[in-house]
Amino acid sequence: MKILVDANVPGAEACFGPLGELVRLPGREIDAEALADVDILVIRSITRLNAATLDAAKAFGSPLRFVGTCTIGTDHIDQKALARHGVAFASAPGCNAEAVVDYVLGSLLTLAERQGWRLSERRVGIVGVGNVGGRLLARLSVMGIACLACDPPRAEAEGTDGFEELDTLIDACDVLCLHTPLVREGRHATRHLLNAQRIARLAPGTVLLNAGRGDCVDGHALRQRLAAVGDISAILDVWENEPDIAPALRDLAALATPHIAGHSLDGKLRGTHQIYTALSRYLGLPARLALTDLLPVPPVSRLALQGGLAPEEALRLCLRTVYDVRRDHDSLRRESRRLGMAKGFDACRANYPLRREFSTLAVELGGEASEVAPLLGGAGFRVP
Amino acid sequence: MKILVDANVPGAEACFGPLGELVRLPGREIDAEALADVDILVIRSITRLNAATLDAAKAFGSPLRFVGTCTIGTDHIDQKALARHGVAFASAPGCNAEAVVDYVLGSLLTLAERQGWRLSERRVGIVGVGNVGGRLLARLSVMGIACLACDPPRAEAEGTDGFEELDTLIDACDVLCLHTPLVREGRHATRHLLNAQRIARLAPGTVLLNAGRGDCVDGHALRQRLAAVGDISAILDVWENEPDIAPALRDLAALATPHIAGHSLDGKLRGTHQIYTALSRYLGLPARLALTDLLPVPPVSRLALQGGLAPEEALRLCLRTVYDVRRDHDSLRRESRRLGMAKGFDACRANYPLRREFSTLAVELGGEASEVAPLLGGAGFRVP
Ligand SMILES: NC(=O)c1ccc[n+]([C@@H]2O[C@H](COP(=O)([O-])OP(=O)(O)OC[C@H]3O[C@@H](n4cnc5c(N)ncnc54)[C@H](O)[C@@H]3O)[C@@H](O)[C@H]2O)c1
Ligand SMILES: NC(=O)c1ccc[n+]([C@@H]2O[C@H](COP(=O)([O-])OP(=O)(O)OC[C@H]3O[C@@H](n4cnc5c(N)ncnc54)[C@H](O)[C@@H]3O)[C@@H](O)[C@H]2O)c1
Repeated sequence: MKILVDANVPGAEACFGPLGELVRLPGREIDAEALADVDILVIRSITRLNAATLDAAKAFGSPLRFVGTCTIGTDHIDQKALARHGVAFASAPGCNAEAVVDYVLGSLLTLAERQGWRLSERRVGIVGVGNVGGRLLARLSVMGIACLACDPPRAEAEGTDGFEELDTLIDACDVLCLHTPLVREGRHATRHLLNAQRIARLAPGTVLLNAGRGDCVDGHALRQRLAAVGDISAILDVWENEPDIAPALRDLAALATPHIAGHSLDGKLRGTHQIYTALSRYLGLPARLALTDLLPVPPVSRLALQGGLAPEEALRLCLRTVYDVRRDHDSLRRESRRLGMAKGFDACRANYPLRREFSTLAVELGGEASEVAPLLGGAGFRVP
Repeated sequence: MKILVDANVPGAEACFGPLGELVRLPGREIDAEALADVDILVIRSITRLNAATLDAAKAFGSPLRFVGTCTIGTDHIDQKALARHGVAFASAPGCNAEAVVDYVLGSLLTLAERQGWRLSERRVGIVGVGNVGGRLLARLSVMGIACLACDPPRAEAEGTDGFEELDTLIDACDVLCLHTPLVREGRHATRHLLNAQRIARLAPGTVLLNAGRGDCVDGHALRQRLAAVGDISAILDVWENEPDIAPALRDLAALATPHIAGHSLDGKLRGTHQIYTALSRYLGLPARLALTDLLPVPPVSRLALQGGLAPEEALRLCLRTVYDVRRDHDSLRRESRRLGMAKGFDACRANYPLRREFSTLAVELGGEASEVAPLLGGAGFRVP
């Protein structure tokens, strides 16, 4: 059984090596010809798998019967064509959701320090309560932060309990976090969900964070409010027209990062592992390997705190020990000035430094510091 | 024996309590009357001790015989008047020098990350090689960073070996660190030591750091070069006309802080301890208390690194775990906008958060990370 895996999928040897003959190719080189004798294919979003490619591969006599993509997105794959050829399919929903939540907590705490406020005094509105938004809601709730949630598709399917209207969030929240996918049409369309009118309605002091899709916010209207009034703050990881984003908006955002919120090593390995699990199930084999078997020892494994720090300071310290979002803000600015916007944006993503998730850090608490255990645990750190 | 100590001197109970009757007063309230029955006086720079005050105190019959200031500066004290009255005197030279070196390393590594360079590739010029500059030279040298030193008064007294001209540093160094006192006149005057002509000569890419005295740099000329050309970077902790500093220069500096480079708790306690030692010697008593007896447990005591980090990344992580200079940069910006420049500048200093020195952090190194032990040890961390 021949298993072809994109060369950029980490953890592939451990997961797929024992199952068959493992072959690796750069994602761009995976075409119909490369699939001629492949049974199992594991890819990322760089490989486009459309009907033409599949038809051609099958015409070559390809035995392809399972395709997995180690990504949450599936736009690069024609699932109908796969079904037509009887090829099984799996993706990795939510694999990098924890990393995005790390990004959100890190960004908000960084802005809070800069502007001199405490997150515990703010109410957070979460728009889009799926894999990312749901985990954010869970962590913030355990941390004792007041939250409101908005997700009309879920409210429709599950009942309105616990869900609010978007305009309620806009009126009642100090922080607004967008974690919606891009939906261009229909009742729940998200394109310019935050349109000029809603942006105008944001109260002074509001923090708007977008780590969903750039098109969910009207960037022109946001830029105008930031430039003309400057009384709200924006944290932007996703942008209209990526990678050639508007330099003025980059400069006006309090934190501006190049669509990297989900870029943790843990998230990538979780993606591999989700496909490994799906494949094992498909093959009727036990999935012997646990995700923890794949994860390498983190660069920073332990931090000991002794008290004398305000709770949010202790939290900030832990967050930044694992991941300091200002690094990514600084590198977008630097690289986009050096190489031009589009090239700089892509360069930051291509050369992204190794990043781990909060759950890799064990925090030892001595003395008074033991009081912050619930907060740190809620935020995702390992607190013995 | 009555010992009067400024209420803002930390560690006074432990040091001076056992030696006599300890009395505390806010520094501003220490006047001739307050000294009427005082044998020993321990102050900070807020208390002005001039001839008139001393004469009046002595006229009241004050038994004053020892004055100590827990500061490196002595401008607030008329030492001639003390001598005239036979009062012994001690100050605390160098007590906060380690904190300033922490600030310098932290600032340079922060700028290096933001701008994408490595300190190990740069040559650092140190101007003023006294308590601060000398310790900076020592730490950088152990860390393997190339340095040049300039200190004409020392070169004159000790021989020119190891010392260069200021203009040699300007031509040969990528980073220039000023640690000179303000000397208004004479052959070694330091007022506008970095004048318009020298500022114009700095090569593009140069980093100019001033943590000595604000008047050592021509702020107007620096502002012009930063605004018009913007090809050099400034890290400024000291300013002309403090606390009412030029807002334009604050905004143009890559890092702008409110004269807090030396503000560690360790430095303050070291100051107390130096006066305690001097007083014990004066009284002919053994100084039983060690500085370490005064230092409280630090908020962050231990960090474990496992490798997978470039050496300067590991260093940066350790630095910021103890002290992140961006906090002080952000708070100067925020408070000076909120309260106006002078009030904001002073507010940052008055409400300065507890800060410890690098030497309070023990770094445990596992796996490959053990390779960075010399670098971290050289920078001042405790590496077992
Ligand atoms: N910035 C990054 O690096 C990064 C990383 C991961 C995910 N994402 C993006 O974040 C978004 C969310 O990801 P996810 O994994 O949570 O997806 P998901 O599909 O699990 O969740 C999306 C949620 O949004 C809800 N939603 C849809 N339309 C809505 C509307 N009009 N108003 C409010 N809610 C609406 C859905 O009902 C769903 O619950 C996606 O667009 C994804 O691409 C970005
Ligand atoms: N930013 C802060 O928080 C902070 C903290 C501590 C000290 N300081 C300031 O830093 C400066 C240095 O402090 P220190 O404790 O090292 O003082 P120091 O007296 O120990 O050393 C100063 C050194 O500067 C040298 N010097 C004098 N004139 C010079 C010239 N023209 N060119 C080059 N070198 C010259 C002297 O010879 C001496 O070696 C002082 O002005 C002090 O007030 C600032």
